[in-house]
Amino acid sequence: MAITIDPSELAKDFRRDVRERLSQLGRRLKLVGFLSTNQTPSKTYASYTKAGCDDVGIDFELTEVPKLELESAIDRANSDPNVHGIIVYYPIFSGEHDRYIKDLVDHRKDIEGLHTYWAKKLYHNDRFVDAAKSKKALLPCTPLAIVKLLTKARTTLGCQPGSLRPLAGATVSVFNRSEVVGRPLAAMLANDGAEVYSFDVDGVLKFSGGLVEEAKITRSVALKASDIVVTGVPSRDFELVSPTEIKAGAICLNFSTLRNFTPDIGEKAGVFIPRVGPMTVAMALRNTLRLYENYHA
Amino acid sequence: MAITIDPSELAKDFRRDVRERLSQLGRRLKLVGFLSTNQTPSKTYASYTKAGCDDVGIDFELTEVPKLELESAIDRANSDPNVHGIIVYYPIFSGEHDRYIKDLVDHRKDIEGLHTYWAKKLYHNDRFVDAAKSKKALLPCTPLAIVKLLTKARTTLGCQPGSLRPLAGATVSVFNRSEVVGRPLAAMLANDGAEVYSFDVDGVLKFSGGLVEEAKITRSVALKASDIVVTGVPSRDFELVSPTEIKAGAICLNFSTLRNFTPDIGEKAGVFIPRVGPMTVAMALRNTLRLYENYHA
Repeated sequence: MAITIDPSELAKDFRRDVRERLSQLGRRLKLVGFLSTNQTPSKTYASYTKAGCDDVGIDFELTEVPKLELESAIDRANSDPNVHGIIVYYPIFSGEHDRYIKDLVDHRKDIEGLHTYWAKKLYHNDRFVDAAKSKKALLPCTPLAIVKLLTKARTTLGCQPGSLRPLAGATVSVFNRSEVVGRPLAAMLANDGAEVYSFDVDGVLKFSGGLVEEAKITRSVALKASDIVVTGVPSRDFELVSPTEIKAGAICLNFSTLRNFTPDIGEKAGVFIPRVGPMTVAMALRNTLRLYENYHA
Repeated sequence: MAITIDPSELAKDFRRDVRERLSQLGRRLKLVGFLSTNQTPSKTYASYTKAGCDDVGIDFELTEVPKLELESAIDRANSDPNVHGIIVYYPIFSGEHDRYIKDLVDHRKDIEGLHTYWAKKLYHNDRFVDAAKSKKALLPCTPLAIVKLLTKARTTLGCQPGSLRPLAGATVSVFNRSEVVGRPLAAMLANDGAEVYSFDVDGVLKFSGGLVEEAKITRSVALKASDIVVTGVPSRDFELVSPTEIKAGAICLNFSTLRNFTPDIGEKAGVFIPRVGPMTVAMALRNTLRLYENYHA
């Protein structure tokens, strides 16, 4: 039977590390959150942000902002030297309008790593913000959380990953190619050396090294070859991934709020990771610290 | 009966002006276009760009680029000092992914004014790129084309618009709030002094001065009050705007590829502008010249 990894355990480890590093700063950091939607998942994420900040010792100020006043609220937070990080809870408007909002947040305060500045860094595998390569670039929270969970799973299975290309030799299938999780995740895994098959309704792309190309591969062939299977399909029409489809001992991770694997997946998987949430928050806290070190210290 | 304004006539005037100014530069400008889609409207727009460039004397180089190679093609054009302008034909990927592509084009070569840099300028009514206010900011082509057509219509009707707030006192209804046309258009009209009711499936917003707020107004009340009605609804379910709904003498403009006014709208409208296309291309050419003057001269 597969080992199940609980993201809240790993999140605790990361929060402890952040808490210790924060305690050595000699000052408290301030994160502001803007809630412009009534949607439950956004409110839940906001309350988890609060709990995480309390745990590591970051001052968190959550403001409910009418969506038409959000832009000026972001402007004020951008120019407030006492604010070290900003988090906006999406979705608010349409996809393209929300994308515009994401680029309004000063990238030096964008703890979720959603600004195009960070996306460009990621898609060009440019890992630093300074020429001296002393300051690391930010990565978006959820894909980063997934990478950390997969690393933990690999270690649990006895892999000793190299630090430069920790996923060299691994094949991964990712079901989801959203701009928020699936596409950056595929790029990050490829940057770490994996060969990644990225599935969505538009077809299959292969991410490998810095290259992205159309892949003529079926789901069943890709799954049979995959050491890691990541799912994030928010649809009940998705055909659940079952034990007969996967490689024995594969690492299976689902980040959708819906079930994407059959309940018996653990009979063949090596590790099963049923959710990511707490790790996303931990990565947001870690990013807050990194932005402070890079830009505000 | 309403006067009908043909955008190709006004476009000819603007192209003549651009041609004359270009001829005084002492060098030819180069515009590159990237076509990564097979969709007919994109191909048509590309062929109109070519014809417009030929007419004013800009070298236009159109390349068909597989969509997965588009990002590197843009990178090369960004860093090529012999390229003065870049145009990418959308849609290519999903909305958010296309938004990412728009921000990859160096804003100093983005002749369509689609980069977030330009959107921020527009939404903050910041009309210059330099502190000395000698270099004008770019505006997105289609909304700009609409504003120019509306100005022409007002002049035709005998209005002598002031140069600072040419639409002061005017009420406008805009049916469409896309990120590409409707929202920037509403902001531009408000920047020019109009009171703008912006309709879309999510409701009605009022743009006025630098403010945007929810408006509790019905379509019929807004239409009765509007000196200008702009439509851009790409749906056959849209209830066509009819003469009984509008103010006598109103300026009516449609930029949707579908009919949005009833065929008898001219019986009550003062001016009817049935399409915008040729003016969009003329504005792209004009923007190419402006970017050259701002950044490359």
